[in-house]
Amino acid sequence: MHARKLRMALIGGGGAGFIGRVHAIAATLDHRAELVAGALSSDPAKGRAAAEAFGIDPARAYGSVDELLDREAGLPADQRVDFVSIATPNHTHFPIARAALQAGFHVVCDKPMTTSLADAERLRELVAETGRVFVLTHNYSGYPLVRQAREMIRQGELGEVFAVRASYLQGWLHGLDPDRPPARGAWKSDPDKAGPAGALGDIGTHAYQLARFTTGLLPAEVAATLRSFVCPQPLDDYGHVLLRFQHGAMGSLTTSQVTHGRLNDLTLEIDGTKGSLAWRQEAPNQLMLRRLGEPTQTYERNPNAAYTSPAGRAACRLPGGHPEAFFEAFANVYRDGFDAMLAHADGRPCDPLAADFPTVLDGWEGVAFIEQCVASSRANGAWLPLTAGDSRGTRPAS
Amino acid sequence: MHARKLRMALIGGGGAGFIGRVHAIAATLDHRAELVAGALSSDPAKGRAAAEAFGIDPARAYGSVDELLDREAGLPADQRVDFVSIATPNHTHFPIARAALQAGFHVVCDKPMTTSLADAERLRELVAETGRVFVLTHNYSGYPLVRQAREMIRQGELGEVFAVRASYLQGWLHGLDPDRPPARGAWKSDPDKAGPAGALGDIGTHAYQLARFTTGLLPAEVAATLRSFVCPQPLDDYGHVLLRFQHGAMGSLTTSQVTHGRLNDLTLEIDGTKGSLAWRQEAPNQLMLRRLGEPTQTYERNPNAAYTSPAGRAACRLPGGHPEAFFEAFANVYRDGFDAMLAHADGRPCDPLAADFPTVLDGWEGVAFIEQCVASSRANGAWLPLTAGDSRGTRPAS
Amino acid sequence: MHARKLRMALIGGGGAGFIGRVHAIAATLDHRAELVAGALSSDPAKGRAAAEAFGIDPARAYGSVDELLDREAGLPADQRVDFVSIATPNHTHFPIARAALQAGFHVVCDKPMTTSLADAERLRELVAETGRVFVLTHNYSGYPLVRQAREMIRQGELGEVFAVRASYLQGWLHGLDPDRPPARGAWKSDPDKAGPAGALGDIGTHAYQLARFTTGLLPAEVAATLRSFVCPQPLDDYGHVLLRFQHGAMGSLTTSQVTHGRLNDLTLEIDGTKGSLAWRQEAPNQLMLRRLGEPTQTYERNPNAAYTSPAGRAACRLPGGHPEAFFEAFANVYRDGFDAMLAHADGRPCDPLAADFPTVLDGWEGVAFIEQCVASSRANGAWLPLTAGDSRGTRPAS
Amino acid sequence: MHARKLRMALIGGGGAGFIGRVHAIAATLDHRAELVAGALSSDPAKGRAAAEAFGIDPARAYGSVDELLDREAGLPADQRVDFVSIATPNHTHFPIARAALQAGFHVVCDKPMTTSLADAERLRELVAETGRVFVLTHNYSGYPLVRQAREMIRQGELGEVFAVRASYLQGWLHGLDPDRPPARGAWKSDPDKAGPAGALGDIGTHAYQLARFTTGLLPAEVAATLRSFVCPQPLDDYGHVLLRFQHGAMGSLTTSQVTHGRLNDLTLEIDGTKGSLAWRQEAPNQLMLRRLGEPTQTYERNPNAAYTSPAGRAACRLPGGHPEAFFEAFANVYRDGFDAMLAHADGRPCDPLAADFPTVLDGWEGVAFIEQCVASSRANGAWLPLTAGDSRGTRPAS
Repeated sequence: MHARKLRMALIGGGGAGFIGRVHAIAATLDHRAELVAGALSSDPAKGRAAAEAFGIDPARAYGSVDELLDREAGLPADQRVDFVSIATPNHTHFPIARAALQAGFHVVCDKPMTTSLADAERLRELVAETGRVFVLTHNYSGYPLVRQAREMIRQGELGEVFAVRASYLQGWLHGLDPDRPPARGAWKSDPDKAGPAGALGDIGTHAYQLARFTTGLLPAEVAATLRSFVCPQPLDDYGHVLLRFQHGAMGSLTTSQVTHGRLNDLTLEIDGTKGSLAWRQEAPNQLMLRRLGEPTQTYERNPNAAYTSPAGRAACRLPGGHPEAFFEAFANVYRDGFDAMLAHADGRPCDPLAADFPTVLDGWEGVAFIEQCVASSRANGAWLPLTAGDSRGTRPAS
Repeated sequence: MHARKLRMALIGGGGAGFIGRVHAIAATLDHRAELVAGALSSDPAKGRAAAEAFGIDPARAYGSVDELLDREAGLPADQRVDFVSIATPNHTHFPIARAALQAGFHVVCDKPMTTSLADAERLRELVAETGRVFVLTHNYSGYPLVRQAREMIRQGELGEVFAVRASYLQGWLHGLDPDRPPARGAWKSDPDKAGPAGALGDIGTHAYQLARFTTGLLPAEVAATLRSFVCPQPLDDYGHVLLRFQHGAMGSLTTSQVTHGRLNDLTLEIDGTKGSLAWRQEAPNQLMLRRLGEPTQTYERNPNAAYTSPAGRAACRLPGGHPEAFFEAFANVYRDGFDAMLAHADGRPCDPLAADFPTVLDGWEGVAFIEQCVASSRANGAWLPLTAGDSRGTRPAS
Repeated sequence: MHARKLRMALIGGGGAGFIGRVHAIAATLDHRAELVAGALSSDPAKGRAAAEAFGIDPARAYGSVDELLDREAGLPADQRVDFVSIATPNHTHFPIARAALQAGFHVVCDKPMTTSLADAERLRELVAETGRVFVLTHNYSGYPLVRQAREMIRQGELGEVFAVRASYLQGWLHGLDPDRPPARGAWKSDPDKAGPAGALGDIGTHAYQLARFTTGLLPAEVAATLRSFVCPQPLDDYGHVLLRFQHGAMGSLTTSQVTHGRLNDLTLEIDGTKGSLAWRQEAPNQLMLRRLGEPTQTYERNPNAAYTSPAGRAACRLPGGHPEAFFEAFANVYRDGFDAMLAHADGRPCDPLAADFPTVLDGWEGVAFIEQCVASSRANGAWLPLTAGDSRGTRPAS
Repeated sequence: MHARKLRMALIGGGGAGFIGRVHAIAATLDHRAELVAGALSSDPAKGRAAAEAFGIDPARAYGSVDELLDREAGLPADQRVDFVSIATPNHTHFPIARAALQAGFHVVCDKPMTTSLADAERLRELVAETGRVFVLTHNYSGYPLVRQAREMIRQGELGEVFAVRASYLQGWLHGLDPDRPPARGAWKSDPDKAGPAGALGDIGTHAYQLARFTTGLLPAEVAATLRSFVCPQPLDDYGHVLLRFQHGAMGSLTTSQVTHGRLNDLTLEIDGTKGSLAWRQEAPNQLMLRRLGEPTQTYERNPNAAYTSPAGRAACRLPGGHPEAFFEAFANVYRDGFDAMLAHADGRPCDPLAADFPTVLDGWEGVAFIEQCVASSRANGAWLPLTAGDSRGTRPAS
């Protein structure tokens, strides 16, 4: 069925965080890829030591990204890695992704893609130039019912979408001790590493992408009010963002990493002229459809139900009632990337800027979103223009 | 125990709406009042005809408010009504309340209190002058767990409150046929009757009052973006409001009467430095307390539980698990008013501007809130000052 | 609309329990009755003292049931009470109800109706003889969505019902101190007062009635396993009951008053060949309908929705989203009784054994259920025959 | 960290079912095993064709189980598979498992383990004789919060457990067309392949194992009432099972594959003298702890929370709020098996009958449970003795 397993190199993941491990599991869940190389830490010794836990052959456990790219590029085509997955702090995404693309590898990259729009722009150009696949791990877009929601909206089941509300609440910043460095996540509070935004960049970009991904609405203006209530550094840990989309629809995003006891509480609500949808990441196997005067419909993630859309069905691995969750959604984003990489390898059409999964354009949009939100907040919440990446014509508002 | 039943007159309630019936049931639920008189419609014949269904003696079923006030004022003290409850469209609240206060009656009034701040100011003055009890039916503040939330915050259980989010979603406006008058609620879409705001006045004022009531935070500034997506008249049916409270706390309110399938979905989330709370009106018997690293605590409305605060306990009529709901919460607001009326009757201290239940000051605040939101929205969401009624010193932020 | 208010006498309610207060509120919620007399305690002084809190004129606050019946019977027809509500410990239900019926009054009685089937049989005969209305307060049958469920089943929306599961879990017995008498509910653990069953009689009869009421299934056999894990007296506090209905359907009931932290957790699940229903008393405003391959449908208690059945609609007082709860359900049972009492007063047809609300027949069934369960449990869970009251022909299985 | 990847052979999985794929994903999720061989179908051609989709080298895609065992046993020790996973219809479990054990392989086997107790007994003996690891995939015991529940009970947090209730509801049998063979699952309705029980064997054994696993209670007697409401064959599709445990605790199990719209609705409720627990497989990241008079505690699957027990923490791969689900729970059972297999390989102590994960003893218990339930149901629900496997002394009731 799948001609060969793609070969993966992991950048980062050797520290205390969990996201490197997520990449390793998600990428290989369907046995379509194998993790064969890594530069798992900025500390070469640490990186090499971590390789064993990832099952990486010591010979391909590199001490640095440069070494990895250089050595892998020198391997025969049937041995060298096909793609690198970047699971490092934000400020390193750009140089690593740039180098990987220039070395001819496909790239899978965490968000936010870069810490400046100029860098994001450069990556967009590089992807266009190299034609390499670029996957941005907006993993929440991989949930089957998120894809079902998008498809329902595209099919007009909600009528015209006029409002979208996303809320992303966490509380972990209350656990930071200002007097000592945290075991992990420390860089998220450090502007030099995280970029110009805190919670907004870390989780707000997911919420924004999810709103864009599902509704297809094109942004026009943004107004933001960001606050730092608990964060020991001058980065936002709480914020309200309002959006004006083209043709009049409204959006709102709430981000918090200081709401006690919330874990990863991402919710999405979409209002259309014919119905409304609600979804919550922590209960991802249900999607609520409401229409005035009708019973609330709870759609289950259920590949065998007639109400499940083709895209929703394709994103499932298990029957309904056998819950799927975070790893599988993450794996779905990888899976889409793999299809594109194989198409590229086979010489089939594969425009990395026209893909249906999160790409460098989503990355560009996320960085543009951050920059305008930060600017708006500094301007006392003034409305500032916000534009979409140019591929968005492929996702027209329904 | 209760020396005597208070005598109630109902203004409005004879039409297709349900709120007049709610007043009649809530006010008498505890047998502390009896409904003895009414002017149930602006149409005298209709009003008299409706009286029977309310069990009102035809002799006291009046054709107009003026007639009611005049005739009742002329009755002996042991027969005439003690208070009038105003359940009429917004634009009539002011003249009726003013006349009732001037005639010496206590007043229970629906929200928003008036359609202009000048009128609200006048009522505040009148209450101060007459010393009559004035209850504004912000009925959601009567829920036992809302009162528990307030008491927990006052006791410092959340630490310092730095954010409050309220959301109030309905969808009924999708049911309006633009080509024919609706059976009920028509006036809510008519600026001449509803006042300057639509959903914001109808439900947003509840959400604002609830945020103020529970947190005790004092407002400083407001920014609003209001929209009319479905409403056939030029009133808002959807909106986002941001609040800056004194000392830096943030607030957000979302109002919608155009979210398909939502019925009366009022939610409240409060963030403090030591914990966060969440409550939902449609499941009012549970209150969620969250703290980082601890299990989520679900407080039940349960007068027998040690965790229930005195105010929460006092607001209960049934043991836990025997759910209480809308009527009982509404009745709790009445009950507080009755205590004040009896204190007034007995010559005990009773400052109608210092009461712990929603008063003319809440009414004033609601109207000020509406006016500044509408002004802000017209000014492209600019921040405008927002002030509290002057009694708010009695509700300091914890 | 309603020609006159019915006059109510309350028996019991003067102690620490809450059910007397529930009767007083529920019966008068719609202003169709007024509480005018009472014998509120077996202790005359205590009963008279309690009368004031209930708003009962001291002149009609009687020291005993006999006094009440005697004196009220002697009053002119336009003054004497129409009905007596019996809110006393189980063992007194029979003598009070018998005396009230014989004195010509309608009766509203708590469950279980009697402590022996012989007594239940005698009451059934008395109701037939006197023609007086007899309402058994199986209050959970008054919830709008319970009535909707019954109507949906009658209409065949579930196809043929083949299974029903009820579970009724409480935990309050863990709070009893075996070394001291409890403030209230003590009699529930005393076989002399509670009858032959503990939890089974107190809550199991509700669950059984609800299963019978909604499905209309006619019982054939029962097998029970009862336990006493915590109860200081030899009464069951935990039990499993299986039912075989006529034509092959199965039923199961679980009762517990020793499940820590459960308050009043009554759930009902019904399986039919075309769909299944689920309802939970602590969230009574929602009813779930499931069909294979379709989204779960959440029916809201919503009088304005087209999906609401006439019986469901008639049981509502508020629009959807404005939750109704325990009192209103209880009041619905009273309301049905009032209709019958007024029909009786007007000489309209009123067969007290053919009514659509819980009657003496439900009471008889409940006692029969208790006796056979206790007998089965003593016989090591053997299947024993179980019969329906003879009115059940009016509730055919769909 | 992990010395080497274990080599896996998969038996079955080449048909329309999903469980073979689940084994393939779960076993390799943590990169501790690799799928290298398979006999994926009883149809050799079909089995070989399916191998590619599983990434199995055609050279090790065998046409039959015998061929697989024979050929693998002949490979050098550093190439041949370590274990075989059996994902075939019930009636084939025994011969395959027996042959695999006899050939020296570890075994991972679906439930129910065999279709007769004699066969189960034989497998138990074989495991004792061969010393090979035998894992029964009672995958629900792999959920982190199920393990947390077990550990809480072992620690005495619930006091003495006196009751356990499990319910396992599905509805898929309504989708079977009696006139044509189903695409998959057909054998589940065929007594020759499924064994003496239908739903009871397919899902009831999971529920029983879960009750045993979490509470550690030792069974004494069982009474069952099984029905076939929809199943086209004479196997149960609905049933109620009561359990008497040693020392007096009660248990109840409800199984249904004919409850419309239920997907895989397995719930567990446990009552102790100090608290009660509730868990639901379809929302597996939450566990509810209730104590009289205290707020309900919702434990999240959260490795970073202090309230999480060591066993719960060890079973997590992601932070709280990043939901884990079916695959990861399944993988946890594999993980435990891998530890034992590696211990075996290293010559460390490894008693396959004393393991803390589901073993051949759970399999034996499940088959004994089925046989006694079927016998009881045929004897009109009589109580019959039920015994535990002999390792259960390692799981004392708390």
